[in-house]
Amino acid sequence: RQGKFTSETYPDLKRDERFSQLTPEHVNYFRELLGKESAVIDGVSSDSAADDLEPFNSDWMRKYRGHCKLALRPGSTEEVSKILKYCNDKKLAVVPQGGNTGLVGGSVPVFDEIVISMGRMNQIHEFDEVSGTLVVDAGVILETADHFLAEKGYIFPLDLGAKGSCQIGGNLSTNAGGLRLLRYGSLHGTVLGIEAVLPDGTIIDDLCKLRKNNTGYDIKQLFIGSEGTIGIITKATIQCPQRSKAQNVAYFGLESFEKVQQAFREAKGQLSEILSAFELMDEGSQTLVTDVTKNRRPLDDKYPFYCLIETSGSNSDHDSEKLQAFLEDVMEKGIVLDGTLAQDETQIKALWGWREGITEALSHLGSAYKYDVSIPLKQMYQLVEDTRARVDEAGLLGDTDEHPVRAVIGYGHMGDSNLHLNVSTRRYDERVEKVLEPFIYEWIAERQGSISAEHGLGIAKKKYIGYSRSATMIGLMKQIKGLYDPVSLSLVVAWAPLLK
Amino acid sequence: RQGKFTSETYPDLKRDERFSQLTPEHVNYFRELLGKESAVIDGVSSDSAADDLEPFNSDWMRKYRGHCKLALRPGSTEEVSKILKYCNDKKLAVVPQGGNTGLVGGSVPVFDEIVISMGRMNQIHEFDEVSGTLVVDAGVILETADHFLAEKGYIFPLDLGAKGSCQIGGNLSTNAGGLRLLRYGSLHGTVLGIEAVLPDGTIIDDLCKLRKNNTGYDIKQLFIGSEGTIGIITKATIQCPQRSKAQNVAYFGLESFEKVQQAFREAKGQLSEILSAFELMDEGSQTLVTDVTKNRRPLDDKYPFYCLIETSGSNSDHDSEKLQAFLEDVMEKGIVLDGTLAQDETQIKALWGWREGITEALSHLGSAYKYDVSIPLKQMYQLVEDTRARVDEAGLLGDTDEHPVRAVIGYGHMGDSNLHLNVSTRRYDERVEKVLEPFIYEWIAERQGSISAEHGLGIAKKKYIGYSRSATMIGLMKQIKGLYDPVSLSLVVAWAPLLK
Ligand SMILES: Cc1cc2nc3c(=O)[nH]c(=O)nc-3n(C[C@H](O)[C@H](O)[C@H](O)COP(=O)(O)OP(=O)(O)OC[C@H]3O[C@@H](n4cnc5c(N)ncnc54)[C@H](O)[C@@H]3O)c2cc1C
Ligand SMILES: Cc1cc2nc3c(=O)[nH]c(=O)nc-3n(C[C@H](O)[C@H](O)[C@H](O)COP(=O)(O)OP(=O)(O)OC[C@H]3O[C@@H](n4cnc5c(N)ncnc54)[C@H](O)[C@@H]3O)c2cc1C
Repeated sequence: RQGKFTSETYPDLKRDERFSQLTPEHVNYFRELLGKESAVIDGVSSDSAADDLEPFNSDWMRKYRGHCKLALRPGSTEEVSKILKYCNDKKLAVVPQGGNTGLVGGSVPVFDEIVISMGRMNQIHEFDEVSGTLVVDAGVILETADHFLAEKGYIFPLDLGAKGSCQIGGNLSTNAGGLRLLRYGSLHGTVLGIEAVLPDGTIIDDLCKLRKNNTGYDIKQLFIGSEGTIGIITKATIQCPQRSKAQNVAYFGLESFEKVQQAFREAKGQLSEILSAFELMDEGSQTLVTDVTKNRRPLDDKYPFYCLIETSGSNSDHDSEKLQAFLEDVMEKGIVLDGTLAQDETQIKALWGWREGITEALSHLGSAYKYDVSIPLKQMYQLVEDTRARVDEAGLLGDTDEHPVRAVIGYGHMGDSNLHLNVSTRRYDERVEKVLEPFIYEWIAERQGSISAEHGLGIAKKKYIGYSRSATMIGLMKQIKGLYDPVSLSLVVAWAPLLK
Repeated sequence: RQGKFTSETYPDLKRDERFSQLTPEHVNYFRELLGKESAVIDGVSSDSAADDLEPFNSDWMRKYRGHCKLALRPGSTEEVSKILKYCNDKKLAVVPQGGNTGLVGGSVPVFDEIVISMGRMNQIHEFDEVSGTLVVDAGVILETADHFLAEKGYIFPLDLGAKGSCQIGGNLSTNAGGLRLLRYGSLHGTVLGIEAVLPDGTIIDDLCKLRKNNTGYDIKQLFIGSEGTIGIITKATIQCPQRSKAQNVAYFGLESFEKVQQAFREAKGQLSEILSAFELMDEGSQTLVTDVTKNRRPLDDKYPFYCLIETSGSNSDHDSEKLQAFLEDVMEKGIVLDGTLAQDETQIKALWGWREGITEALSHLGSAYKYDVSIPLKQMYQLVEDTRARVDEAGLLGDTDEHPVRAVIGYGHMGDSNLHLNVSTRRYDERVEKVLEPFIYEWIAERQGSISAEHGLGIAKKKYIGYSRSATMIGLMKQIKGLYDPVSLSLVVAWAPLLK
């Protein structure tokens, strides 16, 4: 299936006419520079490459689609540098592309921007088995790096559903959070060094391999989460933790969000160093999974809330003992109403399925309005309830076909205060969007939450940044953008309207 | 004892004549602004405050001493903002001062800069017992925050020897590392939000309380480790981990640095999630401690190297079992030659004394050239050996009085590749410095190490930054400095020569 063009979905976005139009002469320059035939996918000189360009023009969800006529696949940092310098000089717009799994439309062109695809830069350069520092090209696929590390007894400090396709450069550029953040912290802490190329071609050689280096401003931090708007990341050094030998998973039911918070508090206290995930699912989300998979639920009864706890440690017996004791304790205290422990690998996978299967179940049932937000923990679930009430009051929610909305559900990384609010719909109905927005953004802003916890701004959220950032902060961001990309020519598409 | 003036020790530093001279009129402005008598320590209008100004003019080591005539103690962010704006307008130089425990001379004036002392801003504003996020004023003393957290079952993710005096604002400004970095990571990961004031008085309101917030450039990161050169931090939000219930400590002897690395690798594998410190001490360092304290050594025999391992976990029995098993395993494999486990609180303290007592022993014995550096782990100890050989070849090292150098020793945070190289001297001899510098900096640069792992640049190391950072990176830093402090007037003293 082919999606709509982004330029149609977002008619507000206009091509900046200061950008040049691509010519065969430009293409010739790139051909000579990159040498390899397969490194230049050329739809400028002739139309025959249209099919080959399609994957560069649309994203993982097929929600965003561009009109790009040229994709470049550089093989080295020097090539990236020369491409950017040339584009800057010639006023050609570009968009960096990693695994194309970002969910906010940042990695695909809107108009005719040149795609700079990083997949050919895919070498693992160095790994120090004592310190655990890994040096990789930006185009290395996350799962490839993690498999490499597994053999050495290490683990990549980041894990997410798209790991088979997403690239480390893309992960850094979006400051991806994912499933291990609770345990290993954010990329701002685990990335030790970055090599990147600025829009004018300058190579930033900050590929530090040290955990500690206090010699001046930590410039590399600006590239983490900047979604390709100030430069292209070409290499990175990552501090990788030791891989845990043992894994245990528990799933339990609770009667209120109040109790969920108590359980989280207890889990941190009793499981502390071995806690590696604390996920929340509401009853609505589990109903959807049941409806789609027809699987038997892990617990006999239904509860308003469920949590999934994962522990990772170096000693399986110790960990089971702790988890068992924890479960007994919280059940005795009435915090948890019922629970079950996975007994083996298969059961672990099955329990995780009740959390990880939600996205798939949702897409199986039709469309969904998805909000990946962060809210102070105490108020986190309130957003789901308030949204549900609002949709219901508008007469849009119901079990029968006349209602466009099937369910308003919430789940997410409880440990990180990261909620995935999903409004599952039966069909498109413009009343739904009107009821949801800007209501949800305003609700979040009032509570100092974030309108984008994990995924970034991209095309999807750039115009809402004001809900999460003050005018002062946005002003400072513009300054940074101006510093690295003064003519605002290349690398600007996603945030362009924001940053001009 | 009164130290030498910094302006004498560093005759190269010249007062920038673009700065105005302080007048009683300026002082009157500050008096009216701050109201409180005790908030303005005035040596401008009369000489009577000279004694009161002394603590603001000299640092913890009494190694740096300034000529400041005015110290201000603001009580709110708005006051800091007005002070900076006024200073910027009137071209008055300032230096932010926290607990004054920084070791590189960054917190004290060199000439007549106004000290902005943060100690009055010392409120703990908020703590969320479920998520563990703490909101504090910059002037809160680290230990105060940690005691507050202890009562709630949490811990501050940073710990260091100066905790009784240093302030959280100072910790952030120096990106302090310390004893818990191995476990909880760097402040770039654990600081969730910052409120700061720019040189022109602009208040940056980025006091985010969320673990995840991907909405634009992470500007706050620039303030972490910037040593007060681009603004004054006024508040911070910190993600605090759960406090561990159990602590265990082991101390053991090894025959080579090769074995130390093996032991580290094994400790990470076997102790993994409970490992909270892995410290290295060489025989030379332990001899110094023995000489000064006359304490009986933890092990019967002497070994070239010793390590101290600390574990922190939620279950004391589990942790002891793991540590015991680890020790048996590494002894069996011949990695470790002898070892001992602390049996109670007192023994834990005693064992830590063999690591933490080194600094004191060194200062007891006279002066020392101190280098706080980071080097890729494999080569880390080589620096001590090469330095020792060099000092020895120059005929400067020996047991007898005619030799200016008593010992060249190494110890440090092995887990973070962070070495403290110390050259203990009997008296000042200019030949020693000549043998050490720039040799040590060049040695580190060749191995892509850092000339300042933890403490920052300050006055002490600013001119050596080129050994750890490329010209491109230094150029980017100058840009940032120029962005936030365009006239390079206030907040520049420490890095001034570098950044102009
Ligand atoms: C099934 C699924 C699950 C996901 N789960 C999570 C999750 O749990 N947590 C989470 O945080 N995110 C999640 N995501 C979104 C996540 O951001 C991306 O999967 C991933 O981080 C993006 O990597 P990528 O290589 O695909 O980047 P792309 O999608 O190709 O690009 C993303 C952005 O980064 C830029 N970019 C890419 N490479 C570079 C580079 N080398 N230099 C500069 N800029 C670059 C692009 O221009 C674009 O703006 C998920 C996505 C999917 C599809
Ligand atoms: C005994 C001892 C042990 C130590 N151990 C360690 C260790 O293990 N690890 C480690 O990393 N460091 C260590 N240090 C050094 C460490 O950097 C400092 O102790 C501490 O982080 C500095 O805090 P402070 O409040 O004393 O800052 P100060 O010394 O007052 O200031 C340090 C720098 O920060 C600036 N500054 C201070 N407050 C602010 C503010 N609010 N806004 C902007 N700028 C500000 C100052 O201008 C100065 O440049 C140690 C120091 C001592 C004396």
